[in-house]
Amino acid sequence: MKALVYHGPNVKAWEDVPDPSIQEPTDCIVKVEATTICGTDLHIMKGDVPAVTDGRILGHEGVGTITEVGTAVGNFAVGDRVIISCITSCGTCSYCRKGLPSHCQTVGGIGWILGHLIDGTQAEYVRIPFADTSLYHLPEGVSDEQALFVSDIVPTGYEIGVRDGGVKPGDVVAVIGTGPVGLSAIMTAGLHGASRVIAVDLDDNRLELAGREFGATHTVNSGSPDWADQVRALTDGLGVDVAIEAVGLPATFAAALSVVRPGGQVANVGVHGKSVELPIQDKWIDNIRISMGLVNAVTGDMLLKMIAEGKLPVDKLATHRFSLAEIDEAYETFGNAARTKALKVVMTA
Amino acid sequence: MKALVYHGPNVKAWEDVPDPSIQEPTDCIVKVEATTICGTDLHIMKGDVPAVTDGRILGHEGVGTITEVGTAVGNFAVGDRVIISCITSCGTCSYCRKGLPSHCQTVGGIGWILGHLIDGTQAEYVRIPFADTSLYHLPEGVSDEQALFVSDIVPTGYEIGVRDGGVKPGDVVAVIGTGPVGLSAIMTAGLHGASRVIAVDLDDNRLELAGREFGATHTVNSGSPDWADQVRALTDGLGVDVAIEAVGLPATFAAALSVVRPGGQVANVGVHGKSVELPIQDKWIDNIRISMGLVNAVTGDMLLKMIAEGKLPVDKLATHRFSLAEIDEAYETFGNAARTKALKVVMTA
Repeated sequence: MKALVYHGPNVKAWEDVPDPSIQEPTDCIVKVEATTICGTDLHIMKGDVPAVTDGRILGHEGVGTITEVGTAVGNFAVGDRVIISCITSCGTCSYCRKGLPSHCQTVGGIGWILGHLIDGTQAEYVRIPFADTSLYHLPEGVSDEQALFVSDIVPTGYEIGVRDGGVKPGDVVAVIGTGPVGLSAIMTAGLHGASRVIAVDLDDNRLELAGREFGATHTVNSGSPDWADQVRALTDGLGVDVAIEAVGLPATFAAALSVVRPGGQVANVGVHGKSVELPIQDKWIDNIRISMGLVNAVTGDMLLKMIAEGKLPVDKLATHRFSLAEIDEAYETFGNAARTKALKVVMTA
Repeated sequence: MKALVYHGPNVKAWEDVPDPSIQEPTDCIVKVEATTICGTDLHIMKGDVPAVTDGRILGHEGVGTITEVGTAVGNFAVGDRVIISCITSCGTCSYCRKGLPSHCQTVGGIGWILGHLIDGTQAEYVRIPFADTSLYHLPEGVSDEQALFVSDIVPTGYEIGVRDGGVKPGDVVAVIGTGPVGLSAIMTAGLHGASRVIAVDLDDNRLELAGREFGATHTVNSGSPDWADQVRALTDGLGVDVAIEAVGLPATFAAALSVVRPGGQVANVGVHGKSVELPIQDKWIDNIRISMGLVNAVTGDMLLKMIAEGKLPVDKLATHRFSLAEIDEAYETFGNAARTKALKVVMTA
């Protein structure tokens, strides 16, 4: 088959590799019919994720059809159309049983192994370990493209931003950064009854989109010197209940801290490359919480139901479409989002 | 009356001042019969709390008898024996009604005003605003000395460490720092069903005390190069469920982060003088939470019940006793705890 193979920093190739095969009775093989590129893949390409070694097939998101099942697989059969979770989980370890498969002990302590520690989904076929707990059935009424974003991006924004951020009915939520993950948090904040969802970004086009397509009720350009005052003016003056950081930079982390009210929470969704300063000498007295984490992808079924009912505009995340064979061009487009205005790129078989 | 008056950094005097009087119908006047000194008072004396100005009577902890009540006070009468909460709260603003009087909007946004923005309890008499919601009745079976620690220190360790730290039945809890607040967290961790409570400190005497008197099930001296491994060895190997920081230094904050397991929480109780580094580039993927805050002192009634039942050894916190007139000596003793081995000093009328 063909697959996108990593050969060290800044070197990748869409090349011939052996077809994957069942290795454990709990495996399935899935023919990939749609996949996408994650910001994490760009980090890998820069060499920022040393656990990814030469020869690894990239990708941890995908939709496809099962072509082979291991003898111990009970929930799936050949021909089933499925969504591949970015988190591979045994379902039986202490972390999986607590709803934290992001730390599945059986697969090594971090549930993200696809396109990281084992071969991934940017390929014609992929082997999925622990298929019973690492795949979702693709339901009626959900398109491949909608489903694809349930692999990672939408549950990440929802679980790590909105849910773990503790958004409650009536809350005012600020989302710092309106990339795909930030937009996913914006579109799902209403599931927890947010009264206002304030999109914050430097890019007016993104802000306009956040309001028009994804449900932000207000937008604030963080390039304004008084942007934090503008955010607070959209509250009772004391700040937002939940500030969701969806960028991953020291400045945006500080921005989130600066607009959260006493008793509020900063939910960090962004993946950071360096440490941040926590001004705890000022913030300790504010009774705030800070949360962060890798998606568990345990809310996929709920999200798929809401998508099927037309309540989450996930399809608006797809801005560019390619064939699998055009994956280099897809990387180019996604990697230059400021120029191309790409949100998510979709590659189909 | 006599009171301890702050006259700028490192200058204080036990001197004659006017008696306090009712200023608002919601006030009470309390004759102070027992008071103590908080680490915060030492910070004030160093000049670290600029909001405290020359002429301010210090102190925010106390037990006494009501000598005068305002016309709007309904819950208390002259002659009632009471515990003074370190948090003054109106009971009616949005924060008070959410159980967060630490941010009472009526008293200025921070509920700690005694010995800070208004005159405090290190005096023969003190005026308590919003008495109905800022005092507790002293119940039967609780001594003045036990009750005194319900003003601040025990609820701080419990609410900010144990409760807001999310301790659950079965959890393994590490408490970094075994000063009075750390010991308060240690003694209350059992209220939430902690299975193991690991005291961590540099001082073997304190550790011994934490185990013998306050309920720590294990102790680890953080001077050992492998102290964090020793802590993890007391868990399933992955770290503690909740790490309570009860010192307020960058090193102890880092220590707490280093022993918390994936999915766990760091509850910061220590008051910090400078910012800390948050290695979010490593920790984001661990799905941890960090909490911090000023005590709300909303659990006093529960704590008093447990004390009356003999279930919390709060009396063991009192190590040195003085008369009110000996307050300078009390400060000296408390301020040199390494030498004097003081935990809490008690001054009585």
